[in-house]
Order: sequence, then structure tokens, then C-alpha cells
Amino acid sequence: MTIEILNTGSELLLGRILNTHQQWLCARLTQAGYPVTRQVLVSDRSDDIQQAVREALGRADLVITTGGLGPTCDDITRERIAELLDRPLEFDASVSQSVQAFFRSRGRPVPPRTRVEAMVPKGAVVLPNGHGTAPGLRLGVAPNPFRPGGGPSWLVMLPGPPRELRPMFDDQVLPWIASEFPLEGGFACRTLKTSGIGESNMEELISGPLRHLTDRGMDLGFCARVGEVDVRFVARGADASSVVAEAESITRRLAGDAVFGEQDEVLEGVLVRELTRRRQTLALAESCTGGHIAHRLTNVPGASAVFLAGYVTYANTAKVRTLGVREETLRESGAVSEAVARQMAEGARAVSGADWALSVTGIAGPSGGTPDKPVGTVWMALAGPAGTEAVQRLNRFDRETFKFTTGQQAMHLLFQHLNRAES
Amino acid sequence: MTIEILNTGSELLLGRILNTHQQWLCARLTQAGYPVTRQVLVSDRSDDIQQAVREALGRADLVITTGGLGPTCDDITRERIAELLDRPLEFDASVSQSVQAFFRSRGRPVPPRTRVEAMVPKGAVVLPNGHGTAPGLRLGVAPNPFRPGGGPSWLVMLPGPPRELRPMFDDQVLPWIASEFPLEGGFACRTLKTSGIGESNMEELISGPLRHLTDRGMDLGFCARVGEVDVRFVARGADASSVVAEAESITRRLAGDAVFGEQDEVLEGVLVRELTRRRQTLALAESCTGGHIAHRLTNVPGASAVFLAGYVTYANTAKVRTLGVREETLRESGAVSEAVARQMAEGARAVSGADWALSVTGIAGPSGGTPDKPVGTVWMALAGPAGTEAVQRLNRFDRETFKFTTGQQAMHLLFQHLNRAES
Repeated sequence: MTIEILNTGSELLLGRILNTHQQWLCARLTQAGYPVTRQVLVSDRSDDIQQAVREALGRADLVITTGGLGPTCDDITRERIAELLDRPLEFDASVSQSVQAFFRSRGRPVPPRTRVEAMVPKGAVVLPNGHGTAPGLRLGVAPNPFRPGGGPSWLVMLPGPPRELRPMFDDQVLPWIASEFPLEGGFACRTLKTSGIGESNMEELISGPLRHLTDRGMDLGFCARVGEVDVRFVARGADASSVVAEAESITRRLAGDAVFGEQDEVLEGVLVRELTRRRQTLALAESCTGGHIAHRLTNVPGASAVFLAGYVTYANTAKVRTLGVREETLRESGAVSEAVARQMAEGARAVSGADWALSVTGIAGPSGGTPDKPVGTVWMALAGPAGTEAVQRLNRFDRETFKFTTGQQAMHLLFQHLNRAES
Repeated sequence: MTIEILNTGSELLLGRILNTHQQWLCARLTQAGYPVTRQVLVSDRSDDIQQAVREALGRADLVITTGGLGPTCDDITRERIAELLDRPLEFDASVSQSVQAFFRSRGRPVPPRTRVEAMVPKGAVVLPNGHGTAPGLRLGVAPNPFRPGGGPSWLVMLPGPPRELRPMFDDQVLPWIASEFPLEGGFACRTLKTSGIGESNMEELISGPLRHLTDRGMDLGFCARVGEVDVRFVARGADASSVVAEAESITRRLAGDAVFGEQDEVLEGVLVRELTRRRQTLALAESCTGGHIAHRLTNVPGASAVFLAGYVTYANTAKVRTLGVREETLRESGAVSEAVARQMAEGARAVSGADWALSVTGIAGPSGGTPDKPVGTVWMALAGPAGTEAVQRLNRFDRETFKFTTGQQAMHLLFQHLNRAES
């Protein structure tokens, strides 16, 4: 099966926004066993879109377009594809009602131009948009005038905003692909999420013990991300599931609590789940991460069950007033020190009443470093029922990477303690 | 002039890494007046690369490829293009010496496979790599067997790692493009960043008053992001700068303080700059945004000059203990109410000693809504030198979009107050 992605949008070609759809759709399809063969990006111009659709339909079984379904004058994907395929646009009352309901529920007037969102090419299946107004569309092209032999193709049009595209793809497109194009033979794909072991060290640790599986055709892949490394196993054939299960079991045994999750899990989600299960609560005292950890934890639905409070004590006065850090400690040891990290964590635990409190204090840069405390220096502490543990790290990265890496290390510290408390 | 970008790399098509080259190259070329007409991504397979190069050379004056110039077995771009264009690969001693010097200066042995990096297609100009080993290549294709009429094209091959590609492009490719394809007449491109007016409403507001400019060929574009809309003007010709300046002036007059910045500016960066200029300070009291606003503000280098503290008072007890919100107010009005938003802002201002304090309290969802306070209900307040203002919003989005939108609205409230205080 051949799949091509066609991204439309002059704002992408002008470099105004990053094309995250390409990676997201490719990853989703690859995990399901449907690798993408080509991706093309063209502008919002009539000729460009029609030419690219014509070429893609000439090659692929499935063409997925993104963008250009909205109400503004540069949203022309729907119209141009309808024209190319000679499908008249027909007014769909149910789409129109959804669009009107969307604006009504927000107490806003319905912009007249949104009427075009209810125009559906004849024969297309409407994919309702649960998070916006423009619906997606699915269109069978059979016979396919652009393909040698006329073999059929499918065209799926998705809206541009990621918050609209992603749930629509997961809920309405991926299940349809699996039923329309069933995979022959077995297929298994599994990703373990790890933190605390670098990519090269992880490869050294597990590639030997997994050799009997890679020799049988299992694909072993590593992907280094900020503060974490993905380990991925892909197998095909009748025994695909058992091969991948064995690889996972060997890796978990060797890597221990460096493995914090699987597939798309994020460390903050694992922490919220594990704390909820234990009926324990958490507070944060952040200096150099500036609210980054609180932000990530509160991205998790249900975080309010375990997260009581975060104190972003950026200024020293805030560390003193809110967390009870002692002024003489700040004076003698400096804000980036083991003593201050400990007092921050213990202060946050006391003032919030939480079971656990994590603190971080460090120098994010680009300025603020000294010879004995260079940019990137971090102290973090975890205060818990059995006392306080502090660790030092050196994270020499740009500012945002520094915050993410430091946040990841702090959360992984809590993950390890929760794990140990269990075992 | 037509330019196409051809990204190669199976790791991109598998969705393992994000294609940042596309946006970066497109932005660089657009700013210089050379918009990219198409971008294509294919795998590291021989047929795919040759087919894509053939098609691109059939359409474009300049084709820029990325990736596949290194020493590993999946780096085949150089060889496959040489084969396609029938240019024998010739050993280039100066490239070989650079590669050897690169490894020697790092005290590492020269991997034998790097020899392929010194193989140069006959007639190609070598672009030395200042930050790695594989050089870039520039190749004139004249006559061009793939183009109707045989008109000449250029092929520029760049290495995959961003730290190698970017300086090579800026120092060796962009200046060459400017001299090989001099711009006729003028060129101007400008983006205004706005918040508080939706995409459709913004278009209704300005497209009429700008019609005399768009009729003369100015391109007017809108890009809806989360919580903000970019308005973009692009003009060519002798009067390009004055056309774009007039469009900007009309838009600023009509949209007022919805315009918070220009080009790549972000609202948090504008606030840090404006507060720094006024020598004023800020504190935050976040409930439903959970540290998101603090995180964004502290992404800005220099934020520590204006940002004193953020209180992520997720639990009600934290609102009471840290910010002095009254228990009876929580009981009578509920945590998501005007009274609590005001007490949070005033409490944060008092405890931090900041000039300004922003508070947000709301229901992020997916659960927690009631009939009279549905999911998405938000109260926010700004406490400042002249008193406190509270506003209500209804943000019905998924959780992360909710946080970003709400944060954007809260920061825009402060932006408007700073603006008014000035005028």
C-alpha cells in the first residue's frame, strides 16, 4: 500500500510555521504498519494544489491532504479538489448546523464566510470536526483518471489546526484505514520510553542481548529526544508479537527504572497516574525551570487529584517569603546550592501539606554563570515521607532545552523513588 | 524564479524526527525575496531520490536537496544524483584533506568510509563544510534534459545536520543565489502579530480597507495560531516598501492594541521587554493554566529582571494559604469566580511585592464543569497600581489549547494595560 501526504499552506512554504503534521501523521501511520512513501508541500494556489493532487493520485493508494478547509479566502483545497475531480459542491445542512452550534455554544456570532465549510464534494463522506468548524472529507476516486490503469485511490482531506486534525485522524481515519487496507501477516511495533541513559549507552546495553531477535529480522531503533531516549522494536510475520514482547522484557530487565513508560507516554502522565494510584500528593518549588514542570504536570487530565501547588520562586525574596528558605543560606551558599534546593523542597512540602515536594534551582543561562558554577549548573531535591535527597546536574543547553532536560531529570527522580517505595 | 526543496531521509518519513530544514530554508529564502514553490520529502531509496530529482529539475530553476551526503550506507544522495545526471564521481584531494583535518583536530581516527565524502560529481562546485565533514555541492544542469525546452537549472546539495546546513546555506548559498538570480525591482514582507480578534473577524475588519493595495498586487495573508492571528503583507516592485508600510499603518489603526508585535515576536517576549523598559515587575497566580504562563515568561532570556514569582495554586488550600484567598469566598462564590480571581491577583501582588499581578482561575476540563459554569469557563484578573480589573472568558478547547489560549488572553490583558498607561 502506498500513502502520500500533501500539505497545503503558503504559511508553511513561507516558513511562518513548522510543519508538525508531517511527522505526526508519518509516526502514527508507521506505528500502525503503514509507512508513508512521500510527502509534498505546496502553496495555497489553485494550480499548485491541483497539480500536486493529480500527481499524488497517479502514484498512491491513499492521499492525505492537510489544510485549506477553513473559511478564509486562501482556504481553497476543498474547491480545487472538487473541480479537479469534477465533483460539484453540495450544501450539507448537518455540517452547517454543527458550525452554527459551535459558534452559538461560545456565544459568538456565526461569520458569514463559514458557510463554505458546509459545501461538500458530491460523494464525499463527511468527517465531523469535534474541535473546530471545518469537517474533514473522505473521497473515493474510482476510476482514477490520473493513475496508469485507472486503479482506485482514496483522498482524505484534513483540517490544518493540529487540535482538530489529530483527534479526527485517530478516531475517524486510522480505524477506516485498518479496515479498508487490512495488513497481511503479522505486524508489531512497540516503543519503550526511557530517561537517564544516553543513546549510545543504551545501544551498548541492549543491542548484544537482543541480537538473536534482530538476526531474525526485528528492527531495533533508537531515537534520542530531549531528556529521553525512545527504544523501538518493529517485527513482521506470524511471530511478530512474541518477538517484540521478548525484546521488551529483555530491555526492561537490563535498563531497570530508566524505563518509565511505553508508546506515547510522557513522564508527567506516568507520575500523575502513579501518584493517583497511591493516593499521594505533590508540590513543586521551581526556580530555573520557571513553571515548566508545573505546566507539564497540569497538562495531564486529572492532575488536580495529586498536584496541590507549585511555587515558582524566581526571585530570592520569593524563596524566603513563600518557602521559608533562610536568608543566611542564600547569602552563604548562593541560590544555586544543595542547601537551598533542600530548603526549597522541604519548605514546599511543609507549606502545601503534600506527601512529596520536588525542587530545582540552577542557572539556565545564557548569562549568570561563574567559574565554579557555570551556566547549566543545577541542584534538585526531593522531599518525601522518608527524608530529602538532593542531586546535582550539569545541563549545558540552550534555555528551553535546559528547562525541559532539568524538568525531566527532576520528574525522573520522583519516578525512581515511587518505584523503589513499591519494590 | 522557481525554487524547490527536496528533503531526503527515511527517519523523516517514519516520523522519528521533525523536518526543521523545510521551515528554516523557506523562511530564509522568503525573507530574501525568493519564495519556495514546493517541498518534497522522499526516503533514502535510490529510485525515490532519482524520481524526485528528475521531477524537480523538470519544474524549478533551483533545486535544493538536504541529507544523504554523509558516510553511512543510507547516504546515497550524491551517488544517485551523479548517476541520474551522468556525471562521473571524481576524487577531490582538497575535500579529503579537510575531512582528515577535521578528525585530526578532534584527536579521532579517520573512519575509512568518509572517503566517499571526497567523491565529487564532475563539474560540481564544492561548498566547504565548516562544522562537519561532508561538503555541500553546487551543480549547473545545462542543458537540462528533464525540463521542457532544456532550460538550465541549478542543483544545490546540503548536508543533513542543521548545525552544518545552516551556516553553509547562509555563507555560501544565499549570497550565490542573490548574485545568480538578482531580484528585479523591490521586495517587502512584513508580519503583524495580533491577539483578541479571530481570523475571520480580522479579515472582515481589514480586507476592505486594504483592497486598493491587494488590487495592486499586494499579497494579504492570515495565519490563525492558538490565541493569536498573524497578518502578513508581501509586495513586489519599486514601491513594495511603501505599499507594505501603508498596509501596516492601516491595520494598526483599525486593529488597535490587538496588534502586540511584529515578525517573529511572541507576547511573553513583548511583555518582558516592555516591563523591563518601565522597570516594573510582575507576579502570577495561576490555577487552571497550571504554570503555563510562568513557563512562557521564563523562556524569555532576561525574564528574571521583571518576573518575581508565580504561585500555581491548584488546590483551594494553596489559594488560601499562599495568596490569602478567603475561605468564605471560595465557599460562597466557588474557586472559578470573579471574587476569587480578584483575591488571587491582589494576594499575589501583596505577597510578591510586584507592580502587577495576573491571576487566572477556570475549568480546563475535560471534567469539572457544571450547568452554570461549563468546562472552559475562566475568570482572570489584573491587579496593578491603579486597581484591579477582572474579565470572564469561555475557552472551550482541549486541555493544552485551553491553557495556551487562556495564558495568551491573560498576557494580552496586561499588554493592553501597559499600552493604555503609556498613551
